[in-house]
Amino acid sequence: MTTEPPVLLALDLAGTLAFAVNGALTALRVARLDIVGVVTLGMITALGGGIIRDVLLGTLPPATFSDWRYLAVAAGGGLVAFLFGRRLDRLTSLITVMDAAGLSLFAVTGAVKALDLGLGPAQAVILGAITGVGGGTLRDVLVRRIPSVLSSGLYAIPALVGATAAVVVAELGIYNAATAVGAAALCFGIRMLGVRLDLDAPMPPAAPNPGSDDD
Amino acid sequence: MTTEPPVLLALDLAGTLAFAVNGALTALRVARLDIVGVVTLGMITALGGGIIRDVLLGTLPPATFSDWRYLAVAAGGGLVAFLFGRRLDRLTSLITVMDAAGLSLFAVTGAVKALDLGLGPAQAVILGAITGVGGGTLRDVLVRRIPSVLSSGLYAIPALVGATAAVVVAELGIYNAATAVGAAALCFGIRMLGVRLDLDAPMPPAAPNPGSDDD
Amino acid sequence: MTTEPPVLLALDLAGTLAFAVNGALTALRVARLDIVGVVTLGMITALGGGIIRDVLLGTLPPATFSDWRYLAVAAGGGLVAFLFGRRLDRLTSLITVMDAAGLSLFAVTGAVKALDLGLGPAQAVILGAITGVGGGTLRDVLVRRIPSVLSSGLYAIPALVGATAAVVVAELGIYNAATAVGAAALCFGIRMLGVRLDLDAPMPPAAPNPGSDDD
Repeated sequence: MTTEPPVLLALDLAGTLAFAVNGALTALRVARLDIVGVVTLGMITALGGGIIRDVLLGTLPPATFSDWRYLAVAAGGGLVAFLFGRRLDRLTSLITVMDAAGLSLFAVTGAVKALDLGLGPAQAVILGAITGVGGGTLRDVLVRRIPSVLSSGLYAIPALVGATAAVVVAELGIYNAATAVGAAALCFGIRMLGVRLDLDAPMPPAAPNPGSDDD
Repeated sequence: MTTEPPVLLALDLAGTLAFAVNGALTALRVARLDIVGVVTLGMITALGGGIIRDVLLGTLPPATFSDWRYLAVAAGGGLVAFLFGRRLDRLTSLITVMDAAGLSLFAVTGAVKALDLGLGPAQAVILGAITGVGGGTLRDVLVRRIPSVLSSGLYAIPALVGATAAVVVAELGIYNAATAVGAAALCFGIRMLGVRLDLDAPMPPAAPNPGSDDD
Repeated sequence: MTTEPPVLLALDLAGTLAFAVNGALTALRVARLDIVGVVTLGMITALGGGIIRDVLLGTLPPATFSDWRYLAVAAGGGLVAFLFGRRLDRLTSLITVMDAAGLSLFAVTGAVKALDLGLGPAQAVILGAITGVGGGTLRDVLVRRIPSVLSSGLYAIPALVGATAAVVVAELGIYNAATAVGAAALCFGIRMLGVRLDLDAPMPPAAPNPGSDDD
């Protein structure tokens, strides 16, 4: 075992919360859904990456179903976002930051869980990146946008970098709360840098996807 | 074991048939597909929820692949809908009723199968709801509509209620054909009530989804 | 065992390459993605069918994660397509041919792998067809097109025929490189014939899907 399970769990729950808020705010902004739709999209965004990870690893049922904390955090995050999201002025910024946080945390936890289960380093990096981008990709498909992982160059790259950093510290035997957060921060930094640079790119950051035809 | 397998099988096949007809009629109505596309969408709608359930439970290959009856019922339902669907006047009503029937039956069977495999009650409820909404969500994604589970408040709720009712009767040890059908009927009733109430809501029931851009 | 593993592997890698090129060229043509998006869509198209197959068969982690060659071929194919795709005049033809090649090869390898794992002949045919159409369906969903498997009558049919041919030769005990390629060629021929005949159908072959709203 290369991980301290409490670290993995804490980061996983933090990523779940970030994606739940992100998915719910996206639902409020893009698709004008009611409370059930908003919370549902928050939960799918929050739990999707981990479910895809666990399906691919064959650790079934997914952690979501054997540990109620994931469901509670995902539902709670979605509900809070529903209640307070409409009043937020800077909704777009918050959506972007929460997405980057979920991406970063899940890239790290996905990679480390894959290593724990005996996959090789390269496979663990790929699986970490899939865990990071999975929930947001489901979210985008469900609200009919071209997924960020395809439309934004600096989305898959930071996930791969964060997962690689996590694998490196785990292989060096120095994986702990600090290095795990460090790996996630690396991913987060690159992602947010990419968002900033996009300010000058043809697609404005407020609408990075050409999707949502009926807006 | 909390279930009588024949009951589970019969309800599962009834849900498969309802969703096969629903998916095929949706294909006829929304996407103007040919016979292969119509039957394929019927089969995906019919089998999708159960496949997602079995993947999440880790009971692989899914029941669909080890039991030919699911494939036969799904293909047969899709074919019948293709042959007779074009002549139906009240296609929209039938699509809605069949969708509600599939939702209800799969919410019950998904929850009970999860209990049988040792999951806790809360997890079984969630898994039942996922089984209920899974096929229709795949259908909507494939024909590029915002899924009902997001756009319609009273879609996930009745699935959760039906799954909860199934779990309650199973835990009370009174799960049988009558109580299982009762749990499904509860879900069906709430869903159809929701459809009726939507008559006065901004989105007309004939087009509950803002999707299908090329209609 | 009904297969020679080297044959299965070679055909699987050839299908992976064909779909990687197809997915990447589709990304160039339909969605105007950057290099990361192009390679990512190529990899999803290339690896998606096999991942769905392995998830349904319960052989997890999928071959993609235990064998680096799939990842390397998928990434390499996507990269080559990105580098040279913009200069190609007959991009549409190449996209169609590569898609038919991937469809054919995966229909055969999926069916044979299912047989190897003990599934019945009918189940193996279905699973082969799912393997064949899976990657392209993910591709179409991600770039928001109605999937070929729904919109084109002669897409699922050749996959079913190719998978059936593979199962027949495997059951007859004459499955080898020559008969496997023959089964794939049968699928490929029917698919390309279908594309040709579509020339006179209402939808032009250059845009077989009504999708991609923002073209």
